[in-house]
Amino acid sequence: MRAGIINITGYAGSELARILHSHPEVEITSVTGRSAAGQKVKDVFPHLSSLDLAITPELEGSLDIVFSALPQVASAEASIPVLNQGIKLIDISADFRLKNAGEYKEWYGVPHPDPSYLEEAVYGLPELRSKEIKSARLIANPGCYPTSAILGLAPAISEGIIEPDIIIDSKSGISGAGRSLSMTTHFSEVNENTMAYGLGGHRHLPEITQELNFLSYEKTSITFVPHLVPMTRGILSACYGKLRPSGSWNGPDAGQRIRDLYEDFYAKSAFVDITAQPPQTKQTLGNNKCLIYPTVDTRTGRLVVISCIDNLVKGAAGQAVQNMNLMCQFPENTALDALAVYP
Amino acid sequence: MRAGIINITGYAGSELARILHSHPEVEITSVTGRSAAGQKVKDVFPHLSSLDLAITPELEGSLDIVFSALPQVASAEASIPVLNQGIKLIDISADFRLKNAGEYKEWYGVPHPDPSYLEEAVYGLPELRSKEIKSARLIANPGCYPTSAILGLAPAISEGIIEPDIIIDSKSGISGAGRSLSMTTHFSEVNENTMAYGLGGHRHLPEITQELNFLSYEKTSITFVPHLVPMTRGILSACYGKLRPSGSWNGPDAGQRIRDLYEDFYAKSAFVDITAQPPQTKQTLGNNKCLIYPTVDTRTGRLVVISCIDNLVKGAAGQAVQNMNLMCQFPENTALDALAVYP
Amino acid sequence: MRAGIINITGYAGSELARILHSHPEVEITSVTGRSAAGQKVKDVFPHLSSLDLAITPELEGSLDIVFSALPQVASAEASIPVLNQGIKLIDISADFRLKNAGEYKEWYGVPHPDPSYLEEAVYGLPELRSKEIKSARLIANPGCYPTSAILGLAPAISEGIIEPDIIIDSKSGISGAGRSLSMTTHFSEVNENTMAYGLGGHRHLPEITQELNFLSYEKTSITFVPHLVPMTRGILSACYGKLRPSGSWNGPDAGQRIRDLYEDFYAKSAFVDITAQPPQTKQTLGNNKCLIYPTVDTRTGRLVVISCIDNLVKGAAGQAVQNMNLMCQFPENTALDALAVYP
Amino acid sequence: MRAGIINITGYAGSELARILHSHPEVEITSVTGRSAAGQKVKDVFPHLSSLDLAITPELEGSLDIVFSALPQVASAEASIPVLNQGIKLIDISADFRLKNAGEYKEWYGVPHPDPSYLEEAVYGLPELRSKEIKSARLIANPGCYPTSAILGLAPAISEGIIEPDIIIDSKSGISGAGRSLSMTTHFSEVNENTMAYGLGGHRHLPEITQELNFLSYEKTSITFVPHLVPMTRGILSACYGKLRPSGSWNGPDAGQRIRDLYEDFYAKSAFVDITAQPPQTKQTLGNNKCLIYPTVDTRTGRLVVISCIDNLVKGAAGQAVQNMNLMCQFPENTALDALAVYP
Repeated sequence: MRAGIINITGYAGSELARILHSHPEVEITSVTGRSAAGQKVKDVFPHLSSLDLAITPELEGSLDIVFSALPQVASAEASIPVLNQGIKLIDISADFRLKNAGEYKEWYGVPHPDPSYLEEAVYGLPELRSKEIKSARLIANPGCYPTSAILGLAPAISEGIIEPDIIIDSKSGISGAGRSLSMTTHFSEVNENTMAYGLGGHRHLPEITQELNFLSYEKTSITFVPHLVPMTRGILSACYGKLRPSGSWNGPDAGQRIRDLYEDFYAKSAFVDITAQPPQTKQTLGNNKCLIYPTVDTRTGRLVVISCIDNLVKGAAGQAVQNMNLMCQFPENTALDALAVYP
Repeated sequence: MRAGIINITGYAGSELARILHSHPEVEITSVTGRSAAGQKVKDVFPHLSSLDLAITPELEGSLDIVFSALPQVASAEASIPVLNQGIKLIDISADFRLKNAGEYKEWYGVPHPDPSYLEEAVYGLPELRSKEIKSARLIANPGCYPTSAILGLAPAISEGIIEPDIIIDSKSGISGAGRSLSMTTHFSEVNENTMAYGLGGHRHLPEITQELNFLSYEKTSITFVPHLVPMTRGILSACYGKLRPSGSWNGPDAGQRIRDLYEDFYAKSAFVDITAQPPQTKQTLGNNKCLIYPTVDTRTGRLVVISCIDNLVKGAAGQAVQNMNLMCQFPENTALDALAVYP
Repeated sequence: MRAGIINITGYAGSELARILHSHPEVEITSVTGRSAAGQKVKDVFPHLSSLDLAITPELEGSLDIVFSALPQVASAEASIPVLNQGIKLIDISADFRLKNAGEYKEWYGVPHPDPSYLEEAVYGLPELRSKEIKSARLIANPGCYPTSAILGLAPAISEGIIEPDIIIDSKSGISGAGRSLSMTTHFSEVNENTMAYGLGGHRHLPEITQELNFLSYEKTSITFVPHLVPMTRGILSACYGKLRPSGSWNGPDAGQRIRDLYEDFYAKSAFVDITAQPPQTKQTLGNNKCLIYPTVDTRTGRLVVISCIDNLVKGAAGQAVQNMNLMCQFPENTALDALAVYP
Repeated sequence: MRAGIINITGYAGSELARILHSHPEVEITSVTGRSAAGQKVKDVFPHLSSLDLAITPELEGSLDIVFSALPQVASAEASIPVLNQGIKLIDISADFRLKNAGEYKEWYGVPHPDPSYLEEAVYGLPELRSKEIKSARLIANPGCYPTSAILGLAPAISEGIIEPDIIIDSKSGISGAGRSLSMTTHFSEVNENTMAYGLGGHRHLPEITQELNFLSYEKTSITFVPHLVPMTRGILSACYGKLRPSGSWNGPDAGQRIRDLYEDFYAKSAFVDITAQPPQTKQTLGNNKCLIYPTVDTRTGRLVVISCIDNLVKGAAGQAVQNMNLMCQFPENTALDALAVYP
């Protein structure tokens, strides 16, 4: 199968190339870049030296599937012509994630260029929507924070065991800020440093809210505070919700019952592990797992869920390949079963 | 003034020596260590080469003030004989922080060796208790997490503007785990890694609860989740509390009114800054500041406070020196006005 | 094929398990550990949760090949009984690397337990000895520093283009110091820190000298200075040698001619790349490549070679699997063609 | 005394402000910046909030001394008008370091705007030139790599104990690359990574060569290879030179004799310590020390000197203040005696 990558020169794009390198059914035949157009892939990314391709300004040749790894807004612009040709497309940006075009404009500052695709797009979280993904043509690949948060909360929200007022406190490695240059990606500024940001409202909030509301019978109020911590890869989200006071889930054995709930919920999900100990981001480095640890703070009657992923794999390129595998009827774990690189 | 340090060989102890080095009124005349007894300070810590002292198993000579930088339990054991001699003592461990001896036993596993000192001890958070500190003989120096959390929440709790059900999500550098060897201080294990821990209940929780309850007119329920992030120094706490729905603090201008409240509350506190932007741990590296940023999540009616310190300075040795300055009628900022080392 | 790992609980051992996980011809059927005996592999290493094995004190069951990942001295002790049973063995420690038993005693402090195995052992650097490896029963897997240095210098030494007085200045990540606890693996001590060590003579020196002398027609004098830099994985060695003044390699086109020499020398070596730009350790993270950049300092007539590997892969476990592939007539790159995890 | 800082917004400039903050004789009264002109210092650098000054495009008011912390070329352009007014100036850039205007053009690509100042400028390495510094009006503050290398080699070169063919292998933290944005300061690119660079010739080479040649009776040939390692601050240089074979310094007690030589050479230098163990960059973090460890590799008859500094302090701003102290007859250590921040 012939695959194209729009914007291989960002971290999601280069990670896609790394993962697809070991996919037996896929050949990358065309890749684009912006400033690097005209160079060879290996000149920009020596670790991809086995991919003997030139970076072009536009996709070239016939393609069976296209991944867009551009930032938002630019991604929609580049993706819509591909979609209009009838090619399957997986968009790693945020451009097709929100169902509501008004909300898109509110958070991204521009009107969506073709809201009909917002309707068509399937939010590509395979653990929750594998059936729709299998028949989709356009996948909105989830954001990194939303992947960790939604997977961490989905069983609790679906079952209605917590009150609809949730706090998500997330910690991300710096690669989540992309390969572009800025003070928040400058080594000397962010090394040995931890900071909160996006306190006025981070763009991943509406996406988390939308998806959790699909699972919930009532509207959920969410405070989401992302942080940058000095590591390259990894997201750890701590999710906090009050157990419903009258609920049958709120008792001395709540912790164990909730663990059982989580294990059942993800029993068929190869990439989600409910862990025996609080997980660490490093346990997912370079692989497609989401590690989830639900526990109850019995002093306060609060559910606390710790959820870890590699933001570039399960939070971006790995999940995109997982979606492609489903769309193309390949085994879901093809090219995705490498173990984490630890330590 | 002649000062002694019990256990200079840990990070709090060596940091004390670093800070006291620039104190014009204090001479360190006796230091103890455990495994390093018999060595020179400079052989263990080359950066303290200007301190020409041998490490002894016990304090020696006459002393005006003693700092204990031993871990809990061992600290009480070593401190009580000093106190019994009538010498002023600042304990950096947790051994005199809890007022309730039963609670001490519950969290530390052993009965307190002399609960009368629990009564006498003053919890040494100068921003809240400077008057008592000035006349104290025994100071329980606050923990690193509690310092960041209590300072971050004190104005809101005192004023009663949030509901008494709070979440504190803290991120600490690895030096908080001390100089002892363990898997959670092993570079290859914790570098490029973020983890939550203490989910079953961290020992700093009762201390935070005790002090916030002194400020509050009703009992406060607290979920406290500490994390380790891959940096040496620094704590950033994100504190979450629901604004009381009927309160006069819950309106369109709540954010600004709460900022004003915080600025008033700390107007006379030289080491607390209410910041215009979310603070970063690196902005406190090596100095005694606590940077606080209160903000309101208007979507959910929730107060979010970000609070940063250097865990070894304001969270340990710097605060101890601040307490000593107050106890000894030195200007509060003596030896403590170095700027943060940035970047 | 059934493989055993002696001491899976160190970094070389766990890395072996990670790599062999994707090897289609090998099943790990027995693993040992020291302090962790009795535990499940996944309890010690959550990232190896797919390896459902208990750690036993001794190897169990019948085995086709055994890897020893114990430290020196202990490794020989555990390996010799395995060898005596006629099982193929790859020793990742230093116990079979030196040909001279006297030298072994000098550097390791104890007499070698069975010098006949020193004679039999093949030094497992496949780029230089693939033929002997293919028929070997006992492989002495090269050290991490020696792998980077010998591969970096082999073409120049073999061709005799530099004087036999060489400096090797190596920089290693902290995982090279192993999983054991010590001050040089303590995060707060080594983070944000660079140090030289082993200035009195590092144990990898005799190994480098021995192997370079096999390639050279005259005895080579080597100064080797290792450093620790604050990263988990990776070794970068800078190798310095004076071009022979009268040599035909010392002229205006020496740089290009030497590049050609290096490219020819490694033309058939899938895991060695002669790079167009100075390589970076990160370009090998998690994979089995050795990246080499030879250049001439024309001001001084000196060859400078930069050589990079992942110390746990090409410098340990990956090279061990490469050796196994050769010994067992599997394609040399089986389980070893994953790309580096970048960034 | 009124001081101005040209370009406070880089790392050398902000570090100057941090250090001068504790200088009792100096008040910073004017600071310039480029892109940040018009902002307050504290808005750019929250850790400098005590410096209540606006950043202006040009220096303002009357000044007794000016520090230029601009990059090369721009620095000369801004400094010459100041010099022409008769104000003392310390240039932290490279613009007045080389005595030879032709060499300046060769390495910096443009002709020097006023070579008469090259003649007048004193190379501000106080350990070697304190007398000239005391009466200088224009100081060329040494580069970070040269400071570590020249101090590490000066005793050996002056005494003539090594052959005039030297290798300097230096490892620098990322702040040495400045506050500007580039791929080599991008966190995700350089974190967990070590790289060599400048292999074709780094701009600090002519400066090192010039200064060592002033000390030597014969011309010295130098190979200089800088590396970036993933930490913010610190330089460690390993310097290699062959002991002269016939020299009286080459014998069984050479190591000790050379240590004695180094100790004598720096006996009056408060900021140079000859250490008993190989020094670590962290032992200088935030302070003005240069730690030097000379040793002899007896196997090869080679002197190896390890030299450590904080690149922003002794390698830039701290040394500038040391120079100012000498120029202005303040005690040399004023504002410079803070201990290193360790860990």
